[in-house]
Amino acid sequence: MLPNHNTFFDELKKRSTLINDYILDERFISCFHPEDVRWAVTAYVRYGGKRLRPAILMFSCGAVGGDEKIAIPAAAAVEIFHTWTLVHDDIIDRDPLRRGQTTVHQHYHDRSLKDEDGLRLSPEEAQHYGVSVAILTGDIQHGWGISMMAELSTRFGVNPEVTLDLINELDTRVLNTLVEGEVLDIQFAHRDIETLTPEIIEDMLCKKTGALYEFCGRAGAIIGVGTRDDPRVDAVAQFTAKCGTAFQLQDDILGIIGKEESLGKPIGSDLREGKRTLVIYYAYHNANDRDKNRITSVLGNQSASDEDITKTISLLRDLGGIDNVAMRAKTMIEEACSLLDDIPASHYRDLLYQWADFLIQREF
Amino acid sequence: MLPNHNTFFDELKKRSTLINDYILDERFISCFHPEDVRWAVTAYVRYGGKRLRPAILMFSCGAVGGDEKIAIPAAAAVEIFHTWTLVHDDIIDRDPLRRGQTTVHQHYHDRSLKDEDGLRLSPEEAQHYGVSVAILTGDIQHGWGISMMAELSTRFGVNPEVTLDLINELDTRVLNTLVEGEVLDIQFAHRDIETLTPEIIEDMLCKKTGALYEFCGRAGAIIGVGTRDDPRVDAVAQFTAKCGTAFQLQDDILGIIGKEESLGKPIGSDLREGKRTLVIYYAYHNANDRDKNRITSVLGNQSASDEDITKTISLLRDLGGIDNVAMRAKTMIEEACSLLDDIPASHYRDLLYQWADFLIQREF
Repeated sequence: MLPNHNTFFDELKKRSTLINDYILDERFISCFHPEDVRWAVTAYVRYGGKRLRPAILMFSCGAVGGDEKIAIPAAAAVEIFHTWTLVHDDIIDRDPLRRGQTTVHQHYHDRSLKDEDGLRLSPEEAQHYGVSVAILTGDIQHGWGISMMAELSTRFGVNPEVTLDLINELDTRVLNTLVEGEVLDIQFAHRDIETLTPEIIEDMLCKKTGALYEFCGRAGAIIGVGTRDDPRVDAVAQFTAKCGTAFQLQDDILGIIGKEESLGKPIGSDLREGKRTLVIYYAYHNANDRDKNRITSVLGNQSASDEDITKTISLLRDLGGIDNVAMRAKTMIEEACSLLDDIPASHYRDLLYQWADFLIQREF
Repeated sequence: MLPNHNTFFDELKKRSTLINDYILDERFISCFHPEDVRWAVTAYVRYGGKRLRPAILMFSCGAVGGDEKIAIPAAAAVEIFHTWTLVHDDIIDRDPLRRGQTTVHQHYHDRSLKDEDGLRLSPEEAQHYGVSVAILTGDIQHGWGISMMAELSTRFGVNPEVTLDLINELDTRVLNTLVEGEVLDIQFAHRDIETLTPEIIEDMLCKKTGALYEFCGRAGAIIGVGTRDDPRVDAVAQFTAKCGTAFQLQDDILGIIGKEESLGKPIGSDLREGKRTLVIYYAYHNANDRDKNRITSVLGNQSASDEDITKTISLLRDLGGIDNVAMRAKTMIEEACSLLDDIPASHYRDLLYQWADFLIQREF
């Protein structure tokens, strides 16, 4: 396996175009009323994003010998499914920015303060109005994603029983796992770091991020071979699950040492929010009492100064938090890649390997 | 057609038991983690409710000659679909009570203020926490409802293409119509009554409530005959749509003159919220300038006194608001019933007629 990022990004770009065209088709968009809801349901898609999940689903389909074009509705569905969870998570996390632009709830909050919609609400009412519209936007996107999945059969010839199986898996097992991961993440932020272990943090990451990537691998492979009962399906699904979790580890590293423009949010956000990432765990584990106090005085402290944040980032690095997690991500990717040993060599398998390689090298 | 409410309620009770058993089955419940989310996803079902939507779906299946038992997953799915919209609407409407008991967001708000979950949050944080858990609860229920629909084929033998068609309709057309109705309802509350007409109010009601009832009739009939392309499907769907809208008209009347224990919320809530119901429209239309001022001084005024509310209710009645809407509901029900003329007489058709009859006579 020779890492070749140019190939990977060229191929990623091609899938991204296919998926955007499918998502933004007039037969979907014309269903959304009134007009401002129509803006909201496609906003995050238009904000950008790499479409990694759809691409991985399509590559997984190709890697087991399937025609990746048939998997387009499932790939687009996963992107929209991911999008509605972002819209609702942004309300829960009270994030004003997503991909460097205004989140849905913030957008409607801002509009309703002005006279644009003839509302001119008080600050408290504007906040509630923004949340209300964002809840409904995510709900509509949720339904939209499922309807895209249905098109696997109604427009792309996939066996209807396979499609129903995928819809069922996405809307129960995957959804429940994602929500459980999200709830654990919120609860951990209120917990003493001493009570956490690398295993329970990784389990949370696997649920929060790995589960949807696992579905991408599984769905792509099932569409490719036409059934769930094939050893290649599990191999690919376990590969994408492990890579998805490693992706989140790298995300947690970048959440601490990344630059503001690539993060799309202010430096130190994760620290001020009090996120119990594996970086924090390892650094804390290696710290003496004085350093432990320095870490806990900043973690979850919304009013920590920029200087405190800069010092804490250095400290986390000095204590080996970053290196330990980077090593763990690397090991996870190696384990993941070995799972593809029995999948015949192909351009698609190479693309999956290149994705894995990108995950631990990326800086954005 | 002889109205026979005893028969109707006996038959409704039987369906209610079937649906509750299906919904509360361990194979679903065991999927929900953590445990407090498990409480939340079934709370409104356990609070009560008449299960009218599921029963109507099953009667519609029987009325076209189908086996209503096969329609159970769709009937349960509609109930859970309705439930998640209630959980999210209660956040949006800031309602503390549903069916006389604590709403999901209010429940978690109240808990987090105390020490029960080890949180003990500030009032503002508790409010946000309650909303966050309720958003996720509704999201899980949304997925759950769709997975129930999938069981039409995976456990009850319905053609998978028919099931996919129903899932697609529920999660795009019906969902979009419901949300549009909800958004219009919110927007109307900020509008001058003079700018509204009976037609646009009825259109909003038809979207907000008629659409899901229309789906109940259509889905039941499609499952019963095995295809969408049968004139009986449209006849039953139009019947249930009209009855659903009449149901909402009666709900608006009861929202003004109903008793607190049957409403499950304080008397005058709809007036204080400023809801632009048809009752308000007709009364306002018949009012002189002095009475118009009396109405508008109370409508949407959260701090209106109980005495103001009592006087306004009398005024709305004296101005013919109640009688006009009751007459409109009666006409709508008559139009609806004539749509079933070409459906062969049967026990099931009688039950649909009895439901229609109940809608305009009910006091709860």
